[in-house]
Amino acid sequence: MKLITDINDMLNLSRLWSVGKKVGFVPTMGYLHEGHLSLVAKSNEQCDITVVSIYVNPTQFGPNEDLSSYPRDLDRDLAFLSEYKVDYIFLPTNEIMYPEGFNSWVTVEHVSDVLCGASRPGHFKGVATIVAKLVNLVNPDFMYMGEKDFQQIVVLETMLKDLNFHTRIVRCPIVREKDGLAMSSRNKYLDKQERKSALCLSQSLKLAVDLHKKGETNPAIIQDKMQKLITKAGGKTDYIAFVNKDTLMQVDKADSNTRILLAVYIGKTRLIDNSAV
Amino acid sequence: MKLITDINDMLNLSRLWSVGKKVGFVPTMGYLHEGHLSLVAKSNEQCDITVVSIYVNPTQFGPNEDLSSYPRDLDRDLAFLSEYKVDYIFLPTNEIMYPEGFNSWVTVEHVSDVLCGASRPGHFKGVATIVAKLVNLVNPDFMYMGEKDFQQIVVLETMLKDLNFHTRIVRCPIVREKDGLAMSSRNKYLDKQERKSALCLSQSLKLAVDLHKKGETNPAIIQDKMQKLITKAGGKTDYIAFVNKDTLMQVDKADSNTRILLAVYIGKTRLIDNSAV
Repeated sequence: MKLITDINDMLNLSRLWSVGKKVGFVPTMGYLHEGHLSLVAKSNEQCDITVVSIYVNPTQFGPNEDLSSYPRDLDRDLAFLSEYKVDYIFLPTNEIMYPEGFNSWVTVEHVSDVLCGASRPGHFKGVATIVAKLVNLVNPDFMYMGEKDFQQIVVLETMLKDLNFHTRIVRCPIVREKDGLAMSSRNKYLDKQERKSALCLSQSLKLAVDLHKKGETNPAIIQDKMQKLITKAGGKTDYIAFVNKDTLMQVDKADSNTRILLAVYIGKTRLIDNSAV
Repeated sequence: MKLITDINDMLNLSRLWSVGKKVGFVPTMGYLHEGHLSLVAKSNEQCDITVVSIYVNPTQFGPNEDLSSYPRDLDRDLAFLSEYKVDYIFLPTNEIMYPEGFNSWVTVEHVSDVLCGASRPGHFKGVATIVAKLVNLVNPDFMYMGEKDFQQIVVLETMLKDLNFHTRIVRCPIVREKDGLAMSSRNKYLDKQERKSALCLSQSLKLAVDLHKKGETNPAIIQDKMQKLITKAGGKTDYIAFVNKDTLMQVDKADSNTRILLAVYIGKTRLIDNSAV
């Protein structure tokens, strides 16, 4: 497990990945949980070399978001990762990722503008830009990403394909706490009462799937029942959306191509979750 | 000299460039002239493998520009290239470069907004995007570009550095006709009288360099004399600018870091040229 902090070291190393060796990459913002570790495990299973990056990317946070309070604990992260075969940990700083005079940005139109993109202007521009940079630096065959950030995956798959990067995303399922809450570094913000309320995200998704199984295909009717469950639990809905899983366009009827996504404030903490129907 | 038209063929091939072999890339829009061929010669001299692309990129042309009339002659281009060691010629189509649902763009702020960027909104967004795509597809160590498109080089160097591409640009000097006109595929548009008028670009640059040598450092004074020469020759100035060669910001005093750039309409044809002072 070798730590790399210099971009030239990372670039020089990754240009020399031997032909025939598969390289897996897990980009993270640190404060790792079992969700991240499942991505590392998957990369270990499928690749010869695994690279993990830990970097809280400032350009994907809005001016009123939680950049400064975002949880960080490198020692804890390294201890977690030591249980896996991680060949390289890339730990860049803001100074080397966004030096003075930095002026280049990657934008992905349409799929970046809806859902979380509508609530967090500029968020996916920051995400697409940092991932383009990291992919160039790490030069991986596969990038392992969790479906909890479902829109992020769609945005990044579009970017990688449109700009002809060779890297492909491996989508990995959401990892949940025993009671159903999707794992997230931001769960740390929740107090005891909020931790309980936060179950409304996964529970309302389960309700939606159950209703669909029973034959309900009208998003408005399902959404109304989800909303009631969330309100009762004390959540404040940012959005609930039934969208086509590839285009993220709203659908009129839920079917096997539909993904249900939601963002809910629990106190001051904004949480997201999603599910197939 | 192998022709490649499929992006997957190009991507699969370029992933396998052997470590230690240097790959040179000359991106062109075809209708090749000695300027392009000087880039191919330079790549031959410095690299083990040379790749040339021929592709008239539609996204860098404005709605009222010369996309449809831009000169194309593939047989002529291939005949020219056959005199050099060109290992691969990449010939993509619009359908594979910009398929339906294409949504991702690369923008370079500030240096794209001035000079030609001010006259041609969106031009450098198209240039930065196609070059990001081509660099991913061809995976070169060096990209050979002519200084005639001086601003383009600054925009692309910024993009490659900011987004951590490993490819580096090799700047090559402007190649000129015997009478001084900078070689350009667009010179084909000029009739006999216009061809004569077009000398005002290189002549006004020569005048500027001469004035500077004699001690004149005030851009306004030099510019005024250049303007008179251009007007007399029948040219219509789009811009004359004295800028810092790295930032493209206008300067108050011409010195060794200054580049003089100009764009002039000769009839309906817009020509550009530039020079150090």
